[in-house]
Amino acid sequence: MQKVTCDVLIIGGGPAGGVTAVTAKTNYPNKDILVIRENEIQLVPCAIPYVFGETLGCSDKDVASCAMAADMGISTLIGKVNDINIAKKIAYCDAYEISFDKIIFATGSTPFVHESLRHSLSLKGVFTVPKNKVLIDELKSYIDVKNEIVIVGSGFIGIEMAVELAESGKSVTVISASKHILKNAFDREFANLAIDIMLKAGVKYVGKDRVVEIIDKNGDNHVNAVRLLSGQTVDAEIVIMATGYQPNTELAKKVGVSLGHYGGIWVDEYMRTANHDIFAVGDCSARRHFITKDSSKVMLASTSAAEGRMAGSSLYSIKYLKGFSGTIAIFSTMVGKTAFSSAGVTEEQAATAGIDIVTGSFTGLNRHPASIPGAQKQLVKLIAMKNGGQIIGGQIVGGNETGEMINIIGLMIEMGVSVYTAMSMQIATQPMLTAAPTNYPIVMAAVMAIKAIDN
Amino acid sequence: MQKVTCDVLIIGGGPAGGVTAVTAKTNYPNKDILVIRENEIQLVPCAIPYVFGETLGCSDKDVASCAMAADMGISTLIGKVNDINIAKKIAYCDAYEISFDKIIFATGSTPFVHESLRHSLSLKGVFTVPKNKVLIDELKSYIDVKNEIVIVGSGFIGIEMAVELAESGKSVTVISASKHILKNAFDREFANLAIDIMLKAGVKYVGKDRVVEIIDKNGDNHVNAVRLLSGQTVDAEIVIMATGYQPNTELAKKVGVSLGHYGGIWVDEYMRTANHDIFAVGDCSARRHFITKDSSKVMLASTSAAEGRMAGSSLYSIKYLKGFSGTIAIFSTMVGKTAFSSAGVTEEQAATAGIDIVTGSFTGLNRHPASIPGAQKQLVKLIAMKNGGQIIGGQIVGGNETGEMINIIGLMIEMGVSVYTAMSMQIATQPMLTAAPTNYPIVMAAVMAIKAIDN
Repeated sequence: MQKVTCDVLIIGGGPAGGVTAVTAKTNYPNKDILVIRENEIQLVPCAIPYVFGETLGCSDKDVASCAMAADMGISTLIGKVNDINIAKKIAYCDAYEISFDKIIFATGSTPFVHESLRHSLSLKGVFTVPKNKVLIDELKSYIDVKNEIVIVGSGFIGIEMAVELAESGKSVTVISASKHILKNAFDREFANLAIDIMLKAGVKYVGKDRVVEIIDKNGDNHVNAVRLLSGQTVDAEIVIMATGYQPNTELAKKVGVSLGHYGGIWVDEYMRTANHDIFAVGDCSARRHFITKDSSKVMLASTSAAEGRMAGSSLYSIKYLKGFSGTIAIFSTMVGKTAFSSAGVTEEQAATAGIDIVTGSFTGLNRHPASIPGAQKQLVKLIAMKNGGQIIGGQIVGGNETGEMINIIGLMIEMGVSVYTAMSMQIATQPMLTAAPTNYPIVMAAVMAIKAIDN
Repeated sequence: MQKVTCDVLIIGGGPAGGVTAVTAKTNYPNKDILVIRENEIQLVPCAIPYVFGETLGCSDKDVASCAMAADMGISTLIGKVNDINIAKKIAYCDAYEISFDKIIFATGSTPFVHESLRHSLSLKGVFTVPKNKVLIDELKSYIDVKNEIVIVGSGFIGIEMAVELAESGKSVTVISASKHILKNAFDREFANLAIDIMLKAGVKYVGKDRVVEIIDKNGDNHVNAVRLLSGQTVDAEIVIMATGYQPNTELAKKVGVSLGHYGGIWVDEYMRTANHDIFAVGDCSARRHFITKDSSKVMLASTSAAEGRMAGSSLYSIKYLKGFSGTIAIFSTMVGKTAFSSAGVTEEQAATAGIDIVTGSFTGLNRHPASIPGAQKQLVKLIAMKNGGQIIGGQIVGGNETGEMINIIGLMIEMGVSVYTAMSMQIATQPMLTAAPTNYPIVMAAVMAIKAIDN
């Protein structure tokens, strides 16, 4: 075995591992940082759906650049860590024996498929959506020569892929077992807008039904259809299981690192495990929700990046006070040409968690006056504490600016800003870029929430 | 004289007056609210530059809707208030004698022209940019039949008009007496980017020079040229004076209301004068800067709207704690197809005000990966306190999302968020909508500012 020594060993080269590495090198320039990752080529995970439509068209256009890490003097090794001796601080990776001082698990997540359907993954034509170029290319080649696609699941990956594929001429059916689509981030009124757009794009939609069997009619190991709980069958040349992801913690478990919620690695706010030489960041870490404090299945590259910044700076001392007390589950998606964004809790989640809330909604335009070319409708909903008025959730649908507006609401949630403060916040408005100053929708939604508190 | 009685009298129907009226009616539904305004038709002020180019093309497309006020039961009178008896609480407007309980000055601002050039305003072809449809239509008709235009002033109104006019085929020269264009909101490196775009659009630019004379060569009361301090003359069929605005406080002064900085009406954080039955909002009020606490000439519809929300809710009691301790001067402008946004202090203003600062800048892309169609360069600069790291200013140039990104920075400034908090803030990212999670430019600029503090 070849012996290698480093100060900081990071297992995984996705957004979490990458940001941890860069942040560690920035904060501790004299430390040797080594990143081990399994894939030679790293995809940008959130753009994977666009590989399948005309937006990107191929996975070669979805490659993450690792140039910065190399420029900074961060070492990279392509390989798989098979074992770790925690006591001796040695990791075993293929032919290498790597001594380290600090180790960071950034092993990400793998597609989750319900137990009852897992055996069908071996059928030709049945796929998941892994963050792996080779496997994505396989799926892409298959799609190129087939037409009838069933997508199981109605989270944002499923919906983004459905619309991309339908717009590129495929026959697509989405099967959703949920009360409504995009359930983890949006309330029904927003989901209904998304369904309308999806249907207009030609996607067929079966709601509140569940795939109970993936059918290989001819016994030739090729999928032909899916059977639903309702009894209905839907023909399928391809079945894409977009039913979520699970923390990839096989190695952590093997070497005795404690796991928390949903099998993620337990960490504190500085992303440290109980052993302060062992960290975990990204999808493989156990997350809680910022508002409800319940365990959270949220897996977002932006959350991972923020965790990486915290871990990378806290390796040898707590340099910056903070660290999260949970994820605010902030994210955006596109359904066709319309942006949907969400942060914090939805109204439905607040009800489930038993939070006393009010809501305030406002519909306006994203330009002013209305005659500005390209002005689009913009709907903002705020969820606020009935007592105190702190903003704890928000949803937006509208034009492309939605993607940054949700970051205003996200900051409000993180900072505990109340609707009373939001009501008179100072904002920039410009005819070609934003809503009118007199009707800026986040402010107006705050005004509506105050009304709801007063009533 | 016809006698009229109301509870709340608002003089002025621009963004400040309009928002005050709507907020007052929302908070005090039983009060009679009367708005008096001089213009039958109210323009959307920030979109006036677009009347002159192809974006809107005429002022009829730039009309503010007053439907909401009428629907809510707010009364409107078109007329001019000539006098007020403060002791008796009676206002005199043309043929009306109006009794009121609370009065709000929302009389706005009028174009400012340096004393030495004011007499030339009577020449045919010399214009200002007032917020008045009749006068804007006059300017527009004149422009339609002329070609050579000189714009005096390099604030955002001047620059937006210059690019619109050049793009619609006119010969346009901008004369700027400032150190660089857009000086009140941007540092030089941003201004240089704006100049490049302006020059590419065909605008001619004369910097660091001043118009000392507006020339009527033939003595026929028509402008022909301007003469500059340097001696140079520039031919002009039209001269547009875009040299700022001043508070319209003639009436307030006449009736003995105290004036503050730059002739604006002195008000406290709740927009009250020393007499708590008299309020002032919008451009006619005296403003201070949130950071420097110096008097501020900032005049923005969004600031006015925020003030209107504070005044309207505080008429009969302080319902909501807060009120501004000054303007953060947050705004956006478009130079051609590129958005420029600013909030708080610039680096140059911080130097003038004697603030110990660091800066952090980051250039990235507004989409991820870089292969996403339409990805545009995005430059973010943060200005932060050297001690403590609080963010006190920010500038952005990039795609249309810039208009909402600056509102994130604005909220950071208002809430006293430090670069240490910003470094690990949770943000939403999406390939088609934002920068990459690993390189989100506001976060990266915060990281750079921290580096600057550490050095």
